[in-house]
Amino acid sequence: MCAITVLGDGGWGTTLAIVLAQKGFAVNLWGAFSRDIERMRTTRINAQFLPGVRIPRAVNLTDQLGVIESTKAVIVAVPSLYVRDVLTKAKQYDIRKTVFLSAAKGLERDTFLRMSQVIEECLGKVAVAVLSGPTIAHEVAHGVPTAAVVAAEDHRLARYFQDMLITERFRIYTHTAVVGVALGGGLKNIVAIACGITDGLGFGTNAKAAIVSRGLAEMVRLGKRLGARERTFSGISGLGDLVTTCISPHSRNRYVGVQMAKGKTISAVLKTMKMVAEGVYTVESTYRLAKRLRVDMPITNEVFAVVYRKKSPLAAVRDLMSRSRKRE
Amino acid sequence: MCAITVLGDGGWGTTLAIVLAQKGFAVNLWGAFSRDIERMRTTRINAQFLPGVRIPRAVNLTDQLGVIESTKAVIVAVPSLYVRDVLTKAKQYDIRKTVFLSAAKGLERDTFLRMSQVIEECLGKVAVAVLSGPTIAHEVAHGVPTAAVVAAEDHRLARYFQDMLITERFRIYTHTAVVGVALGGGLKNIVAIACGITDGLGFGTNAKAAIVSRGLAEMVRLGKRLGARERTFSGISGLGDLVTTCISPHSRNRYVGVQMAKGKTISAVLKTMKMVAEGVYTVESTYRLAKRLRVDMPITNEVFAVVYRKKSPLAAVRDLMSRSRKRE
Repeated sequence: MCAITVLGDGGWGTTLAIVLAQKGFAVNLWGAFSRDIERMRTTRINAQFLPGVRIPRAVNLTDQLGVIESTKAVIVAVPSLYVRDVLTKAKQYDIRKTVFLSAAKGLERDTFLRMSQVIEECLGKVAVAVLSGPTIAHEVAHGVPTAAVVAAEDHRLARYFQDMLITERFRIYTHTAVVGVALGGGLKNIVAIACGITDGLGFGTNAKAAIVSRGLAEMVRLGKRLGARERTFSGISGLGDLVTTCISPHSRNRYVGVQMAKGKTISAVLKTMKMVAEGVYTVESTYRLAKRLRVDMPITNEVFAVVYRKKSPLAAVRDLMSRSRKRE
Repeated sequence: MCAITVLGDGGWGTTLAIVLAQKGFAVNLWGAFSRDIERMRTTRINAQFLPGVRIPRAVNLTDQLGVIESTKAVIVAVPSLYVRDVLTKAKQYDIRKTVFLSAAKGLERDTFLRMSQVIEECLGKVAVAVLSGPTIAHEVAHGVPTAAVVAAEDHRLARYFQDMLITERFRIYTHTAVVGVALGGGLKNIVAIACGITDGLGFGTNAKAAIVSRGLAEMVRLGKRLGARERTFSGISGLGDLVTTCISPHSRNRYVGVQMAKGKTISAVLKTMKMVAEGVYTVESTYRLAKRLRVDMPITNEVFAVVYRKKSPLAAVRDLMSRSRKRE
């Protein structure tokens, strides 16, 4: 019996399982596809999503969702697109005493719900904390220093997961601002696509820095309307995550922007990717929500137009730059 | 007679003179060293600080400080170390009707005064605005899209310089938060040295993002004690400038950190540089000021210890990461 189950055998889920195993926990790593799980069980490598990192024997690889029934804590690390589906299936098991940590970033496509809300919708009133921050998976897996945030309204729950995950090289802060932490992790992917577009057009760091800071400003505007505190967005889970996603060569959302700036259509770009670029979905729901709430989000508008309305990336950047002169 | 004089023929001063000349202004570009000015007059290139960019004929290159007497606006773009010296000399000329724009970032070494304050100390009550933001000079000179901020308590003065400098590719926002804008431009260099240290140690983007967001948090803490508004630091002149300095391959302050992480002493690093790395001075005065005001600035403390106390860069990063578990 394992104390902890990680749902999702992508790069992040695998990394979290490895970190926990290295700390001495018995941990299940669940994946939906038995063939992938079988291969990992043999090779002890997640060749597809986390190449070059050995999965310790203490990680029990499984495709049986029922393992959650005997675990105290479940970490949800499936892509946001599949969270509802997996958690709906999880409902059949006895998880009355289980606590949850949402490590899936992003916002549900049509409902704009945060992942912790989706978990609550599926399972009823359960204890859910949120893990977020600038956490490129393979860096954490290789022990490169990283900081992240665990947020929960109940500070004891945040402390519980902080104690579980913290290591000398994986620094965990606790936070009670659940809404802001979750929104930061979702909205930042839109800004990352915008940064990719300027990168793909051959622009420099000045343009990128402007996109990052103006992007943070519009994240704050929407966040405040949704009940988040402005300050949360300046922290590790907001600004920190935003910066990582916008500069990392491994960022999938940035990659989408780069490719579109080079003239590819969104469907052509997505076909070349094995991983999910959350921002492509987040920008659509954010665009509609911002319109409904009348929140001014110029970067979101331009990214939406490039991704879904065939607007030329160069025209989008020009339109962003030439908005009327104004106060910051 | 030129309408505008730029003081300082470094990369940024030269760039601003070029931008103004391209907009049709007659502009003086003043430098302290007649030999450099003479060479630029012949070659129309600032080979030392802005190679590869032609200086238009409309830029009048001069080493005669007296030209400021007949200009309406003076842009101060000398390194912060020399601002007091140059402005003290400027006092002998009739500049009663001249307005000033401080384009020099940084804080005076011993006094911790902002450059606009130094200008006022030297010249008495004059109209001074502040230009700041993520403005890597050679990007602006090459017409790569860039955004910056002009701050002045008198909004008409900010508008005046906004109109003067704005182009399709150099977007200028106005701001009234002079203190925060100037502090952001100065303090960000300390964080850039810290980012250089993590880069030099071979760490990844996660660590850098953590340094950037925790760095911004301590900039805000000090800024608020000095009368700045928290919000200003999230803008282009705070966060935007911080991000550029921390990721640009051209950042001099980041370079200092990289070299020290590789085991060089600060004096060995500075000997290899022809340009000034403001952060090396700013960290000393900030360290002392933060101590006096009892403001918690862990990143500043560690950078100070590495630069001035021979602390090992690796130990500094370890000490930053292993501070007691806490709320963000």
